[in-house]
This record gives sequence, structure tokens and C-alpha cells, in this order.
Amino acid sequence: TIDSRRLWDMLMDTAKIGGTPKGGIKRLTLTDEDRQIRDWFKTECEALGCTIHIDTVGNMTAIRPGKDASLKPIAMGSHLDTQPTGGKFDGCLGVIGGLEVLKTLHQAGYETNHPIALVNWTDEEGSRFSPAMVGSGVYAGTFTQAHADAIKDRDGVTLGEALDAIGYRGKVAPGSLEFAAYFELHIEQGPILEEEKLPIGVVKGVQGMRWFNVSITCRESHAGTTPMPYRRDALAAFAEAAVALRQIALDHAPYGLATIGIVEAKPASINIIPGQIDFTLDLRHPDASQLQTMKVKALTVIEKAAERHHGTAVVSEFWDSPPVVFDAGCVAAVKAAADKLGLPTRDMVSGAGHDAAYTARVCPTAMIFVPCKDGLSHNEEESSTQDECANGTQVLLEALIAYDAR
Amino acid sequence: TIDSRRLWDMLMDTAKIGGTPKGGIKRLTLTDEDRQIRDWFKTECEALGCTIHIDTVGNMTAIRPGKDASLKPIAMGSHLDTQPTGGKFDGCLGVIGGLEVLKTLHQAGYETNHPIALVNWTDEEGSRFSPAMVGSGVYAGTFTQAHADAIKDRDGVTLGEALDAIGYRGKVAPGSLEFAAYFELHIEQGPILEEEKLPIGVVKGVQGMRWFNVSITCRESHAGTTPMPYRRDALAAFAEAAVALRQIALDHAPYGLATIGIVEAKPASINIIPGQIDFTLDLRHPDASQLQTMKVKALTVIEKAAERHHGTAVVSEFWDSPPVVFDAGCVAAVKAAADKLGLPTRDMVSGAGHDAAYTARVCPTAMIFVPCKDGLSHNEEESSTQDECANGTQVLLEALIAYDAR
Ligand SMILES: NC(=O)NCCC(=O)O
Ligand SMILES: NC(=O)NCCC(=O)O
Repeated sequence: TIDSRRLWDMLMDTAKIGGTPKGGIKRLTLTDEDRQIRDWFKTECEALGCTIHIDTVGNMTAIRPGKDASLKPIAMGSHLDTQPTGGKFDGCLGVIGGLEVLKTLHQAGYETNHPIALVNWTDEEGSRFSPAMVGSGVYAGTFTQAHADAIKDRDGVTLGEALDAIGYRGKVAPGSLEFAAYFELHIEQGPILEEEKLPIGVVKGVQGMRWFNVSITCRESHAGTTPMPYRRDALAAFAEAAVALRQIALDHAPYGLATIGIVEAKPASINIIPGQIDFTLDLRHPDASQLQTMKVKALTVIEKAAERHHGTAVVSEFWDSPPVVFDAGCVAAVKAAADKLGLPTRDMVSGAGHDAAYTARVCPTAMIFVPCKDGLSHNEEESSTQDECANGTQVLLEALIAYDAR
Repeated sequence: TIDSRRLWDMLMDTAKIGGTPKGGIKRLTLTDEDRQIRDWFKTECEALGCTIHIDTVGNMTAIRPGKDASLKPIAMGSHLDTQPTGGKFDGCLGVIGGLEVLKTLHQAGYETNHPIALVNWTDEEGSRFSPAMVGSGVYAGTFTQAHADAIKDRDGVTLGEALDAIGYRGKVAPGSLEFAAYFELHIEQGPILEEEKLPIGVVKGVQGMRWFNVSITCRESHAGTTPMPYRRDALAAFAEAAVALRQIALDHAPYGLATIGIVEAKPASINIIPGQIDFTLDLRHPDASQLQTMKVKALTVIEKAAERHHGTAVVSEFWDSPPVVFDAGCVAAVKAAADKLGLPTRDMVSGAGHDAAYTARVCPTAMIFVPCKDGLSHNEEESSTQDECANGTQVLLEALIAYDAR
């Protein structure tokens, strides 16, 4: 049995690294805060006799030997980076829960057949370096190392530079460390488990998500001397597009989602009609063909809005993560573990992307969800209880042992 | 007669200070570029035997003595700061045209009765430090020195700090140097003179303008796990408000104007539904009561939009510049000067704010407009011809001399 208190203390103590006044965490990937939590992770794993392998994109894998060194490790993992207004659980629970599993095995002197791996993936959040899940994407061969290295943050720093700067570029080739299976524990980040009062979600897959950078170009001119009919106002075009993009999601209810997270007006002067608006667009749907329809509609409404204001739009899709279906064997292991513990479950599809969506491309994968308050995430008030975290971690341990014993 | 070539060369040569690749000028107030043009202005005026008086908000006044030292100076002026995407004429024409007038008087050995003053006002554009016309506003007593000193740019630098940093805080008390009259030459920044093929606009006043900072607060949450009906999306509220604000201006056609020049989403992450949107709003109308109606409607649509998305809006109006009517005597002097030169005119109301709007509060004031291509301003492509600039400057000279001879 895992130690609920120890798990909770680790979660709360490490939350101080990048801790915010509102009780959340701001620990953007590959910053100095990220370096600090990586150092902590390394020290903790080594104290348990694990070997740490760091690959060239900074993914950290701790390996606890099993009885049979010829078997591939069974892996757990998630991420320790956060959003700028991140909570204490998104990602952290999966890694620190995994660490609690390792501590439990260690203390019990339990010997598995397979080696057991615990991974802290680089840049899961995609907030500083877009898209998301870059580390696991390189691991799975979806992105090349060169592509990842070249991604720039908003200050023009590349992921490669940031990785070198914090000293976490390892020598291992991403993907060379193969896993027999991968289990990821995570908070749901949505409202369903809480509403249905269920402690465990058995995650059968991840919805599709597509990310776009959009730029609408019109003509900057004077706010006081340009009559309304003469304007070529990029902001007016943007506002109309934003309203219409939201409507597309509503037209694909209940699953369609459309989000504009970043918007910037140029030249950004109070008395200049903006000549350019740059914004991001995040479209999601569990069904690939509906998502494609949403995309086509989105391109049309953006173009139409730009045209109405005598401007042009450039849309570049820089991420397309299709819907993922997890491995039936791994999903069954999660379900069986929860059943054995007497924890009620329901099947779910993840609305958020997770590293598991990429590991699923190269090894049998499944996920375990636990509830979080008001379904709130990517918010400093994100919260789950000690019991909810402990339940999920216990299911993780049981699923792992059962899978190892197969 | 002024020297058209010399005027043009001065305009083109000084445009290199802060010159942009697209042929405009980026010379934000109180930056090092502003210091350079101020140094140039000082040297040029001193070479003509003028004394330079710098006041505590950085306004620079060059004074050429007249026959009667007991008379108040008749002043010309405008500004040498620009927008981030500024052109070569907005403001510069008024100061450099004034300098050309001084050079002409100097060369001709012409003695006026009144001393003649030429002013380069601080922070006319209001782009770096809002609102606009801060230097002339302090001169006229509309803003206090302390208020001006405390205005912050987007990096948190105050106007006072920036003024000290470039070494242009003088000792003269703003407003202590009183003028008998003030004439400002400026490009129209709108399309009317060009369309009507008229070389000179006789400006009878300035429309009203009111500036607001708006903040809509909702709740940040996850872009992939928050169903559309659960969202409290500040960007959705903003987009609806922006569409409605534009409609208010259209409902007050042909004069009503509404502009959103700056917008910022927070926390600005592609996969976070924005919890907060900050934006600026610029409302204008030549009629004070219509402008007031527009403001009331604006407050309502912003509040309604925030409410629809379960958020709140805070609107702070930080500038209210009511419509201005210029002095009949000064306006007549401009009209008479143009008539004498055989230059066709029309009366106009300025859409843009100008330092003249503040001097008008403390001394007889009028303005002279010249055409600019496509009515385009606050744009690097802003342009007027050598002849257009020379015509305006000649009218400035004639009006000045006539006013002096009264
Ligand atoms: N789990 C999580 O929040 N991942 C970030 C990627 C996404 O936007 O879904
Ligand atoms: N002339 C000019 O562009 N002034 C800036 C103030 C305004 O926005 O009207």
C-alpha cells in the first residue's frame, strides 16, 4: 500500500518550486524552476537505487532493476513543468505518484519481473514552447530532435538553447529506451468524475487537437481621422472571427471546442487602428472527421472576416494531434486494479493532451484519471484531495504489478 | 517667402533619426531618438540667435526677440515625437515648418513687434505615455506636473524617469511663458483636403475624444477539458464587446469613431481560456453630447458582454478631451493669409488631438492643415508633397506676420 501522507507531502513540498502567491505553480519548461525540480527528482530516484537516463531532448527516465534484465521496463510517468498559471497537480501527480510507487516497492523490497521506469517528460505543457508534449513527441518519433531544438518561445529563445542553459541535455537517443507498457496517472482536468462522484476514470483515449497561428493583416491608420467606412481594421476582423469561431464549436456540441488563448494587436498604440492581429487557435474534438470539418469552417470564417475589412489572413497549422485509442490490455489492467480496490470507475476520453498520447504510438499505453475540484485546471486554484491522489496512485501501483505479473 | 527646398531637406534629413525600413519614423517620446532630435532642434534654433527655454515637463521653446520686449511672444509649434509606426510629417511639419519661418525671418532681417516663439511639445502622441498632448496639457494647467511625471509606459518606466534620463527636464515652470497667440501647422491626417483638391484647411476646432482602459475578468481554465457551456471566457466577452463597440460608432455616423488599439489576453497561453482581457478604447465625436451618449452605450455593451460570460468589467476613463473651438481672430488670420496667397481653403474640424487643443485653453489659437496622401497617418507610408508642405509653411508665415502687425 502506498503512503498517502508521504505522497501528499511530496506534492506540497515540491509545489514551492515556482510556487505562486495564489497557491499555484509557475514552473515553465526549461526555466531555472524546472531545473530545480529536475534536480530534486534525480536525487530522490537515485536515493532509491534507480539509474537516471537523460535523453537529448531532456526527458528523464529513472530505472529500477527487475528480476529479468532482458525484459523491457514497464513505465510510469508524466511531467513536472506547468502552465504560467498552473496548479499543483497537473503533471506533478503522475511523476510524484510514480515516485511514491517506487518508494513503496523499495520499502517493501518487492522485486518485479520487468525493470520499472519512471519518466519526467520535457515540455508537456506547450505553453512556453509550442506545441505541447514535445519531449514525448520526440521520444515517439513524431517530432525530430532538430524540430524540437528550433522551437522558439515568445522571447526568441529556442528550446535547444534553454535545454543547454539548464544543463539537462543528456546523451541518450530519444526512443532508444523502449518500454513494455506505459501508465500515466493524471488529474481529469474536467468536471465529470467530480459530478458523478467517482474516484477513478479509466481513460480509453485522447481527443483530437489541432493548433494554429493566425495573422490578419489590414492597414494601420489614425484612430481620430479615419472615418469608419475608410478603415481597414484588423481588430474588427479579429473580433468577428472570434465570435464565429466560438459558434463553430457550439455547432459541434457537446464535444467541439475552440479556444483563442493569445492575441496581440500591432502596432499596439491606443490611437492607431491595428494593422495586424496575431492570435492562436486551439480546436478539439474526439472525432477526427468532425475536427476536420471544424477546421475547414474555421479557415472560412477567418478568411471572410479579413475580407470584410479589406485585409488578408494567413493561417498556419503547426500541430495536428489526431484522436488516440489506448491499448486494450493496459486499459483492462487499470480497470481491474480499480475493481480489486473497490474503487468505482467510468470510462473516459481525455480532453487534454498527455504524453501518453505519444507513447501510445510506440508502446501499449493507458491512463488513470482522478477528480479535481470544479474541473478546474490551468488555473492556480486547481485542486484535488489527498485521498483522491492516493486512490489514483494505489491504482497505478496495482495496475503496474498486475501487468508485470502477466 | 520661405525656402521650399530647405524645408523639405530638413524634413527628410531629420526623418533619419528613428527612421524605419518602411520609410517612416519610430521616435517615441523621451527615448534616445527623441533626445537626438531635441539636440538638433536646439542647435538649429540657437544658430538663429534664439534663446531656448526648457520647462519642467520637457517642452522646448525657442524665442526670437521682437521690437517690443514687453509684448508676449506669438508662438508656433507642434511635436517631434512620433508613433511606433509614425510617418515623416505628423508633428514634424509643424516644428520644422516653424523653424523654416524663423530662418526666413532671420535671413530677411525682418523685425517683428512681438517676440516669436517656436515650441516642441513633449509627448504629443500619447503612444508611449498616455494620454496624448501631455506636455501642452501641463502647459495649459490641465494636467499637473506630478500627474505627468507618474505616467508609466508598458515597461513600467515613468515619464519623469524618461525625461530625466534623456536630460531634458528644464527649470522653467510650465505655463509661465505666456503667448499672445499660438499657430500650429499640421498635416490633416484625414482624406478631405486631398479629395477636394484643396491645399489649405482652416481649422476651426478639434473634436472631442475620450480614452478608456478596460479590463474584463472571467476565469482561466483548460482549453481541452472545459466544455463550452462551462467556460467563463474573457476573450469571448471581449470579442462580442468589440463588435458592439464598433456598431456604436456606426450608429453615430458619419462622425462617431470607436477604436480598440491595444488588446492583451492573460495569462496568454495557447491552451488556456483567457481569464482576463485588457484593452484600450478611444471614442471620438465632434459633438460633446453625442460623445457622452456613445460613452454610456459603450459602458453598457462592455458590461453586458462580461456578464454573458459570467465575468466582470472594470472601465476606467483616463482622458476626456472635450471638443475645442479655436479663437475667431486667429482663425481669421489663417484664412486671410491663405486668401492673400491665392490658396483655396475650406473650414475643418480636426479629428486628431493636437497641442493646439490645449494652448486654446490659455491663449488665442488656430491651426493650418495641409493634405496628406490617402488621408493616411500613424502609418509609415504617411506622405505629403514638397509643395503641400511649403504652402502650409507660407501660410503660417503670413498669418504670423499679419497677427503681429495688428
Ligand atoms: N495535460 C495538459 O494540460 N496538457 C497540455 C496539453 C493540452 O493542451 O491538452
Ligand atoms: N496629431 C496626432 O496624431 N495626435 C495624437 C493624438 C490623437 O490621438 O489624436
